[in-house]
Order: sequence, then structure tokens, then C-alpha cells
Amino acid sequence: MLKKIKEAVLKSNLLLTEYGLVTFTWGNVSEIDRNKNCVVIKPSGVPYHELTREKMVVVDLKGNVVEGNLNPSSDTATHLELYNNFPEIGGIVHTHSPWATSWAQAGKEIPCYGTTHADHFYGNVPCTRKLKTSEIKKDYEKKTGSVIVEKFININPEDMTAVLVNGHGPFVWGDDSHQAVKNSVILEEVAKMAYHTEQLDKDITQLSCTLLDKHFLRKHGKNSYYGQN
Amino acid sequence: MLKKIKEAVLKSNLLLTEYGLVTFTWGNVSEIDRNKNCVVIKPSGVPYHELTREKMVVVDLKGNVVEGNLNPSSDTATHLELYNNFPEIGGIVHTHSPWATSWAQAGKEIPCYGTTHADHFYGNVPCTRKLKTSEIKKDYEKKTGSVIVEKFININPEDMTAVLVNGHGPFVWGDDSHQAVKNSVILEEVAKMAYHTEQLDKDITQLSCTLLDKHFLRKHGKNSYYGQN
Amino acid sequence: MLKKIKEAVLKSNLLLTEYGLVTFTWGNVSEIDRNKNCVVIKPSGVPYHELTREKMVVVDLKGNVVEGNLNPSSDTATHLELYNNFPEIGGIVHTHSPWATSWAQAGKEIPCYGTTHADHFYGNVPCTRKLKTSEIKKDYEKKTGSVIVEKFININPEDMTAVLVNGHGPFVWGDDSHQAVKNSVILEEVAKMAYHTEQLDKDITQLSCTLLDKHFLRKHGKNSYYGQN
Amino acid sequence: MLKKIKEAVLKSNLLLTEYGLVTFTWGNVSEIDRNKNCVVIKPSGVPYHELTREKMVVVDLKGNVVEGNLNPSSDTATHLELYNNFPEIGGIVHTHSPWATSWAQAGKEIPCYGTTHADHFYGNVPCTRKLKTSEIKKDYEKKTGSVIVEKFININPEDMTAVLVNGHGPFVWGDDSHQAVKNSVILEEVAKMAYHTEQLDKDITQLSCTLLDKHFLRKHGKNSYYGQN
Repeated sequence: MLKKIKEAVLKSNLLLTEYGLVTFTWGNVSEIDRNKNCVVIKPSGVPYHELTREKMVVVDLKGNVVEGNLNPSSDTATHLELYNNFPEIGGIVHTHSPWATSWAQAGKEIPCYGTTHADHFYGNVPCTRKLKTSEIKKDYEKKTGSVIVEKFININPEDMTAVLVNGHGPFVWGDDSHQAVKNSVILEEVAKMAYHTEQLDKDITQLSCTLLDKHFLRKHGKNSYYGQN
Repeated sequence: MLKKIKEAVLKSNLLLTEYGLVTFTWGNVSEIDRNKNCVVIKPSGVPYHELTREKMVVVDLKGNVVEGNLNPSSDTATHLELYNNFPEIGGIVHTHSPWATSWAQAGKEIPCYGTTHADHFYGNVPCTRKLKTSEIKKDYEKKTGSVIVEKFININPEDMTAVLVNGHGPFVWGDDSHQAVKNSVILEEVAKMAYHTEQLDKDITQLSCTLLDKHFLRKHGKNSYYGQN
Repeated sequence: MLKKIKEAVLKSNLLLTEYGLVTFTWGNVSEIDRNKNCVVIKPSGVPYHELTREKMVVVDLKGNVVEGNLNPSSDTATHLELYNNFPEIGGIVHTHSPWATSWAQAGKEIPCYGTTHADHFYGNVPCTRKLKTSEIKKDYEKKTGSVIVEKFININPEDMTAVLVNGHGPFVWGDDSHQAVKNSVILEEVAKMAYHTEQLDKDITQLSCTLLDKHFLRKHGKNSYYGQN
Repeated sequence: MLKKIKEAVLKSNLLLTEYGLVTFTWGNVSEIDRNKNCVVIKPSGVPYHELTREKMVVVDLKGNVVEGNLNPSSDTATHLELYNNFPEIGGIVHTHSPWATSWAQAGKEIPCYGTTHADHFYGNVPCTRKLKTSEIKKDYEKKTGSVIVEKFININPEDMTAVLVNGHGPFVWGDDSHQAVKNSVILEEVAKMAYHTEQLDKDITQLSCTLLDKHFLRKHGKNSYYGQN
């Protein structure tokens, strides 16, 4: 079942190491089949080079394992919370990629300081509030998803495909898992440059709304004119 | 037509990845044939590893596609503005290379802090003013070129082969596209070292004019004595 | 004698270069046989690519060479001090890995700023006091171990598998030498991110105890649920 | 003539790229034959991958080309000034390696903040004064050597094998060119860690003299006990 998606999730997990986004097993990728309401996700704690298509775990949207002999990623409940609340998204990546994680640890959103950022994220990359003690103690991984969803009340997950979980690290999504991996690479690059920009000028202001609009919409708007048709 | 230049532009685009200047498709290279008044440029949004000589796009100096089935780079109008105003230059590179882009995002010129800089750029690497709202809304890419040209009223593009577009990133040029790529590598290295120099001493002053002259001119002046004859 | 441990120590030493933790010969790995009370350790000053299983040196817990023709690592006395005082540990790594060493040089413990840290180290990574002049002048390497042991009076070496020696660099341990190498990689990554976190916000506070507990214990506690059974 | 030294200088030049110390042709290595009073040095501006043993240039201690068809490195006069004044040294490396150069550009010596530094350099790595206008205008490369020699009036070049030329970059030496390359790698690593140490604590103090002595002398003193006999 879901052979094609398993293959895609396997490949996307392997891309995490290829793009240098992960140390050891510090990252996981999932993808959803919106017709079957099933999610394919990396098994917990298995090194990337030992992964095979067959080892991918299938869960339903409540977290029940539908297929597979291994435990799913310990972050599965976070993924599911996002799939359940963001019907637009098809794939999710979680890593501890160092630049994005440094911003998350500082508890700061990543301000939009340049057109590289504006080309891909429509505004500052948000950072969630800290989880409350009660949220950490019970259903921690699900609640990690809840604070993300809470943060996105007025944000469209298609315009903003990444978030920083306060004190933790980034969750990133896309139409499918491969797109989510690419967005993770972009987030890391944007986070690195924003860091250096702030060090160069502590009082730097963000890009103007006009320039943000121009760049995001020439790539993503209905009148976009970047790339080939 | 322009087989040789297409080959050169292809090679120079591939060098961008080899030198680590680009993520995904975030960079483009062009080269001009000054006799035919035609510019060969990368097609928009095509990954570097899919590029072939045949996919290169030929445009005239007004931006009309003269040859090729793909859309030219979305930054084509910027390249043309530079070719039209800087008759000395033969090739142009645009990237979002992270160190130079961090300076561009901070809206700061790169001060000449050392002889590495002085060996290659004759003074501080300038940063343009921000574009006005009207310039962003109409003919944005052409206007991106215009603010560069405006900045160079009193600067010779042969002495200063790079510029930072405010909030965006570097445009770099040279006698041909290969030289422009090499200058992009140098800019990135110089930008990185200037960043660290400032962090080590916030009150650092620039290199003396005498030392700037010495280094730039021993490599580029009419009495240059670096390298072989 | 100790063929298997020698093989393990050889492999772990080679991993130091593979993971980019060492320059030249700036690192050494050892592993103990708790039944025989013998320690296998890298020979002093021998480049990693010249190491063979036969070149590994075996010493007893007083530092007498039991087997091998080469001098043991100049840091052997530090390793032994740790093995003698921390009966729980099976392998030790010492490197001058740049991020952890920068914290050691600054004489600062690494604060726990995020869940990546909390997943692996149960609290701030401690930094020893400076050695006294008398300690430097006599039995320096043994005393380097003593200040570590002193620092761990109220710390469990199983909960905290790394320490920074003030002005020097990290010592890291684990159940065996391979685990110690992995912990060294993690320490380096955590040190890097903590550095950038502080630069982003000089007044950043540490992770809450609840979140530290949650992350450390879901991986290491008796009710841990990370990974496969 | 000098076949063996030419081979050594060729190899050492190639090591510069292997160790990531140079961009393009930004570095040169030389080695001296103290019996023949001849120096073998890299030809000026030739890419490393085009170098052959035959292309190495031989000069006497006054700078006259004794053998070879190419121009010697434009920094030859600096090398010669050092050979003429430091009879203890056998090989010299000059690069613009980014971390050491950042300190040179800031005009600051590299303080000894840790044992990594103390293992290799006996005290702070000095930085020369700026050259005077007259020194830049006449015999610039020779005068670059003179300010180094001036700085070493009370420093033994065997205890301190590196120097930063103010606003320029490092010159590094050793018993032969291979040792000088290794010292260049070490300098870069030490410069990087000192930078990060200062960022972590602006008021950091240097290593105690006792600890400096301990580390330098256990590797380099007459009673050294590091490595094999």
C-alpha cells in the first residue's frame, strides 16, 4: 500500500543528509495521501542509511499504525496535528538544522531582510510561543503541533511554509515531501543570512512590503513570471 | 548562432555550483557579443544540471528573444541595463551568495579592510540605494539595473567590478562571463573577511589610499607586475 | 590481547577525522576492559592514517604500559583519572573540536538553550575551574582529570557525558568509545548552536526544567519512547 | 639543480589548496638551500593545478633569478627578507587564509586563549605595525619583510613561527616548507577559535604563563614528551 508515497518519503529522508540538514537521526519527513487519509513517516531512531521503502511506517490521522513493523517517528503526533489543521499541505519535514534551530532557540522569528527570503516566505518566519508546563507534561508532541496551529490563525500555510518551534527547531512543509525538503534548505540559507545581516547592523529594518510583494508574487502569485510555463 | 558564447555561458553557470555560490537556481550568468549586440543568458528557473548549450537564450539589447525556446532569466532586464550603460563589460553574474548578500541585506557597502580586497576592487564595494515604490511596481528588473548605473556615475566599472543591490544581492561583471564568475568568488571571500574584521574591531578603519593604490595597481595598473607577461 | 577493543579504539580514532572533529593529531580515543582493568588508547602523535590495530597501546589503571611498542597518548593520565572515578563509563574521547574548544577557552559552561541539547545532555555542559599553578607544574595530565572529577561531585556522568576543561577543550565519554565519539559530534553541534543563539539574543534564558526533563527522559529515562525497542 | 627542494616546494604549494588555505592563486610557498644560498619559490600568478617541478623559480638571496623561465612570486622580496634575517628558518608560506587574514585586517595580534594555541605558538601571534607611505611607495615587498623583522627584535622565530602583516595577511615559517604549511593550518584553526572565544566573552583573559609554558614546552622544549622518540 502507498508504494509510491513510501518511495517518495524514503527519498526525501535521504535528501536531508545530502543537503547537510541533519546530524545522526535528527530529522524526519512525512507525506500524506489525502484520499486515503494516511500518512507515511520515517521510523523512529533509524539511521538514514539503513532506511528502506519497506521500513516506512503508515499511520492514520489519529496516529494508529496502519502498516509497518517499526515505531513511527516520535514526532508523529506533531505531523498529524499539522495535516489535520492545514488541509493545503502534502508533506512535512522536521529537522534540527543549525541556523534555523539557533533562531528557534533564541525564540525569535526570522525577519525578512532580503529578496531571497521574500522569494520564498511571505513575511517573517514565525516562532511559536513556549509550551506551558501542562502542555509539556501531557501530549507533548501533539501540543507542539497545537502551538504551531495557534500561531497560524492569521497566516496562510501556503504563503508561509515554515515555522520555528520555540526552544526546539523548524517544521517545514510543502505540496509534497520533496518540496518540504527544498523549503527546509531555503529556510536554513535564509536563517544564516538573516543572522549575519543582524550582526552587521543591529538596527536593520525589514524589507518594504512593496518589495516583499513584488518578489513573493513574481514567483508564487497568479501572475507569476519566474521560471518556465 | 553564438555557439562559442553559449558554451562559455553554460560553463560559467555550472561554475556557480562548483564554487558554492548558489543554492538551487539562485544565480544566472550572461555574456554579450558586442559586434552582434546580442546577449546569451541562462533560461529562468532551470536547474544547473539540466542546462545544455542549446537551452541558453539569446536576447537583443532591448530584451527581445532572438533565439531559444525557453524564457530568459527573470533578471534579464537588469543584465541588459548594465550592458547598455557599461560598454566596457563583457559578462555578468548575479547570485545570492550568502556573505555578499548579507552585506546587501544590511544595506552597507563593503569597506576595503585589507590587501585581498585592494588586489581586486579599487575601493569600497558600493551598495545601491533602495528602490522607490514606483520603481518596484513598474519595470522592476530594469530599475534594479538603473540604480546600479546611478551609483556608478563617478565609478569606473573596470575598477569596481561588483555592486550590492540594497536588500537583494550582488551583481558582478568582467571582461567575459568566466572573469565575472571569478570576481564573484573573490567578492564572497572579501565579504566574509570584512564581516569578521568588523566583529573583531567595530572601530576598524579602512586601508590607506596609498596601500589600496599599491595593491590594485600592481595587479591592474599599466605598470602592473603581478603574474607572467 | 584485547583484540576486539583495539579494533574498536582504532575505528573510533578514525571516526574523529571522518566527523571533522580533529586537525592533524589533535585528538585521542580510549576504551576500557573493566574485567581486565586495562585501557586501550591511541599512541601519542601518530597521524590517524598511519594507525593500525597493532599500534594501539594497552595500559593498566596506574598508567603502566602493558602492551605495545609506542608511547601512549600524552593525555593518558587524564583518561585514567576518569576511568578510576567514573565506574559507569567505558570509552573516552578528547579532541580540540573548534566550537566546544571556543567555549572551553572562554571558560564558560554551555547553557542548555534547546531541545537538541536536552535530548543528549541533562543540563548545562559544565566547565572546570582553571588549574592552579602547582597542578600545572606537577602531574598536569592527572590533575586535568582531577578538576573534572571535582566538577562532577554532584553530577552523574551518565546524565552528563561531556565536560569542558577550562582553557583547553572537551573530554567526552560513553558506554564505549564509539558512543563517546557520537557524543563528541553532538557536543560540537550543540556548542555551535548555543554560540549563535547567544549572539542572536544576549539575554536569552535557558530551557525550562520541565522541557529539559521531557526531552532527556523521553530518550534516556526508564520510560523512554524514542527509537525502536 | 635543487631538484629535491623544487619537488618539496611543488608539493607544499599543492597542499595549500588541499588544506583549503587559498582561493585561486592567493598563496605561495618557498624553501631555502642554506648551503647554496638559493631559494625555490612559486612562480607568480600560476594556478596551482598548472604547477610542475620545472616551473619553480630559483632565486639567490638578493632576488636575482638563478634558474627558471617564469617570474617568481610577487612576494619574493618579503620571503628573502625573512630568510636573510631569520637564519633558523627553512621554509615560508604566505596565504590570505580567511581567519588569520581577518585578524590581520583588524590589525590585532591573536591572543593565546587556549592550549591549542600554546601547543604551537609560544605567546600571542604578533601583528606588525602598518607600513609608512614611503615604505609602500618604494620596495614595498622588501619593506613588508622589514616590518616583520622589526616586530621580532625580541621574539625568537623558532618559538613563534607566524606573524600577521597589518592589513594584509599571515606569513608563516618552519624548518622546511612542509612544516610551514602545517603551521599555516594550525594558525588558521587557532585564529578561528580565538575569534569565537572573544565573541563569547569580550573580557576574556589570556592563558596563564604557567600553562603556556607547560603546553609549549611539553611539545617543543628540550624535555618534550609528546609523540614518539
